[in-house]
Amino acid sequence: MSIKIQPEAIASLRGFEMPERLGFGTVMAPVMFRARFQDGRWSDGELLPYGPLALDPAAKVLHYAQSCFEGLKAYRYGDEGIGLFRPERNAARMAHSAQRLCMPPVPESLFMDAVNVVVAHCAGLVPGNSGESLYVRPFLMGTQPDLSVTASRAYEFYVIASPSEAYHPGNMRLWVEREDSRAAVGGTGDAKVGGNYAASLQSISRLKARGYDQSLWLNPGNRHTVDELSGMNFFAVMDGALHTPALNGSILEGVTRESLLTLARDAGLEVHERAIDIDDLLQLVASGTCTEAFACGTAAIVSPISELGDGEQRYRLAQAPGPVAMQLRTALLDIQEGRAEDRFGWMHLVQVASL
Amino acid sequence: MSIKIQPEAIASLRGFEMPERLGFGTVMAPVMFRARFQDGRWSDGELLPYGPLALDPAAKVLHYAQSCFEGLKAYRYGDEGIGLFRPERNAARMAHSAQRLCMPPVPESLFMDAVNVVVAHCAGLVPGNSGESLYVRPFLMGTQPDLSVTASRAYEFYVIASPSEAYHPGNMRLWVEREDSRAAVGGTGDAKVGGNYAASLQSISRLKARGYDQSLWLNPGNRHTVDELSGMNFFAVMDGALHTPALNGSILEGVTRESLLTLARDAGLEVHERAIDIDDLLQLVASGTCTEAFACGTAAIVSPISELGDGEQRYRLAQAPGPVAMQLRTALLDIQEGRAEDRFGWMHLVQVASL
Repeated sequence: MSIKIQPEAIASLRGFEMPERLGFGTVMAPVMFRARFQDGRWSDGELLPYGPLALDPAAKVLHYAQSCFEGLKAYRYGDEGIGLFRPERNAARMAHSAQRLCMPPVPESLFMDAVNVVVAHCAGLVPGNSGESLYVRPFLMGTQPDLSVTASRAYEFYVIASPSEAYHPGNMRLWVEREDSRAAVGGTGDAKVGGNYAASLQSISRLKARGYDQSLWLNPGNRHTVDELSGMNFFAVMDGALHTPALNGSILEGVTRESLLTLARDAGLEVHERAIDIDDLLQLVASGTCTEAFACGTAAIVSPISELGDGEQRYRLAQAPGPVAMQLRTALLDIQEGRAEDRFGWMHLVQVASL
Repeated sequence: MSIKIQPEAIASLRGFEMPERLGFGTVMAPVMFRARFQDGRWSDGELLPYGPLALDPAAKVLHYAQSCFEGLKAYRYGDEGIGLFRPERNAARMAHSAQRLCMPPVPESLFMDAVNVVVAHCAGLVPGNSGESLYVRPFLMGTQPDLSVTASRAYEFYVIASPSEAYHPGNMRLWVEREDSRAAVGGTGDAKVGGNYAASLQSISRLKARGYDQSLWLNPGNRHTVDELSGMNFFAVMDGALHTPALNGSILEGVTRESLLTLARDAGLEVHERAIDIDDLLQLVASGTCTEAFACGTAAIVSPISELGDGEQRYRLAQAPGPVAMQLRTALLDIQEGRAEDRFGWMHLVQVASL
C-alpha cells in the first residue's frame, strides 16, 4: 500500500510542543493515519494533521456502535530507536474484533503500515523515561449514513497516538461484581469493541462510591468464575504457582497476559490457565494460600491488587505488590525498553522518519 | 429553553426536494437539532442545517460506545396537522438508557422541545399515505476527547429525521438464536444503546445465509425463555389469548409493545405477560395451539411471523398474518393516523412552523 504523507502533517509535527504534564491518553499527537473502505476495497492510506472527523449524523457507529479498537505502545528502545511490542498480535485481535461485528478486517499489512507510519513520524514524541511511551490507538468504524440496523458498507480506519506518562494505578482494590455483567454468553466479551466498555461504566461508578478502583467481572454464563477486570486480565499466586482464568469466549485475549504467561513459564514458575471459582479464590486469600494477585494490560503492564471486596466482606492480599508481580513486570519492561535480550522476537523496530 | 433557529436551516428546508423513493431511514431531512452538555449543564438548543458532525478522533463515543438513541414517528394526523405518538415514553426511556451508560439524562422538556422543533419545521416532509411517516431519531453521545475508560464530561444531543415509506418486512421467518446473546444478565438489554445492536449483527448475518429474516433472542440468564427480536418485541396467540415475554431486565420496554397490550386488554382479549419457554412455544406451534405470532416495534408497528427455525427443525405458524395481529395493527394505526378517537391520550399534536 502506498501512504500519502500530507505536507500539513509534517508542518503539524514540526510545530508541535510537548506539554510538560502528559497524563495517559489525554495529549494527542498532531498527526493521524486514515484509510477508507468502500465498495469492497481499502483506499490508500494518508498521514494527516490530527483534527476533527467529519461524520454524517446518521453514521452507523454513532447509533449502533459498529466500531472496534486496539491499544499498543511505542517505547524508546535502547540506542536503536523506537520499538513496538508485538504489534502483529494487535493486528490479529483487531481482525477478530472486526469480524465479530461484521466489519471488514483491516489487513495485517495495512494495520502494520499504518502503525509504523504514525510511530515513525512521531518518534520525537516518544518520551524517554522508563515506563513512558507513545500510546498508539488504531480504531475502525462503520460510517455509512443509514438508520437501518445492518452492517455498514463504508468504514474508516484511523491510527491516533498519545505521548503518555507511565500509568501506575498503584495498588488496586477490586469489587467483585455480582450484579452487572461486562459481556454476554455468546456476546462480544472476547472482542475489543466499544459496547463492552460502555456497559462497564455503571459498575465502575458504583464501586468508586464504595472506595474501590475496578470491577472484578465474573463469567456471565456461570456467574461464579472470574473473567477479568475492565480492560485488564487477572492473575493470582497460590502456593507459589501462577493462576489465571483460561480463555473462555468472554475474556479478552490480552497481549500482556500471553506475554506474562510465556515469561513465567520461561522463569520456571508453575502456571495454570483454568476456571477460577470466585468463592474458592476469596477463601484462599482469607486462608493465606493466595498470597498475591495482580492485573495486567498494555497501559499499566502489571498492577498489584491489595484487596477484594465482596458485599460486606473484604479480603486483603498478604503481598501487594508481591514478588511474582514485580518479577514479571521487570522482565517484561526490560525486554520492551531494550535492557534485556529480545529472546522471543517480540520487539518490532520502527525506522524513524526524517521530518 | 430557548431554541435558536438558524436562517440557514430555514433556507435548507425551502430548498429541499423530496426524492421519489424514500425507503426507510435513508433519506434525511435537511435540518437537525443540537444541544450540548458541558460543565454540568445543557446549552440552549439550535436548529441547524443537516450536515457532518465535527468529532474529535478521541471522542469517547467512537471508542467506548457511550451513546444511546430513540426512534419515534410523526404522522399526518387527520386535518389537524402532525401527530407524534407517545413521545414522552421515548423521553423517559432515553433518560433510562443514558443513566445505564453514566450519561446525563436529557431532561424531558429538552427532549420534547427538540423533537417538536424538528417536526414543526419538517411538517412539509411528513408523507401523507397511510403507514408513511417522518421517522424521528434523537441520539445522545459522549464527545470528550480522552482515551481513558471513564464517562465523558461532554455530550451532544441531536435529533435528526427521515421521511420514510411504510416499513413492511412482510411475513418474517425467525431463527431461534441458541449460540449468541443479544445482551448480558445485568447488562444493557433494557437500554437502547448501540452495543446491543452491534452485538446482534453476527447472528443476523448467519441467519440470512440460512434464509431467515430475524433472530429470536433467548434470555441470556436461563438461555431457555424468549426475550425479543433485535429491535422488536415478541407476541404469540395461544388458544385465543395474547402472550408476550414479561419485562425481565434484558428486554427493551417497547412503546408499541405497551400500547398493543393496552389495546388488547381494551378489546377484551386475555393477555399474559410471562416467561415463555422456547421449547414449550415450539411445541405449541407444532400442535396448533399457538396459531399466530408477531413482532412489534415503532418502525413496522406489527409484523407477522410465519415460521420459527431451530436447528434442523422448522415450525410453521397456522396463520400469518393472523387475525389478532391485524386487529391490533389496525386499532393502533387508526389512532396514530387520526381515524379513531384518541381514547388513551396518546397523540401529541405538533403546531406546524411557518417557513
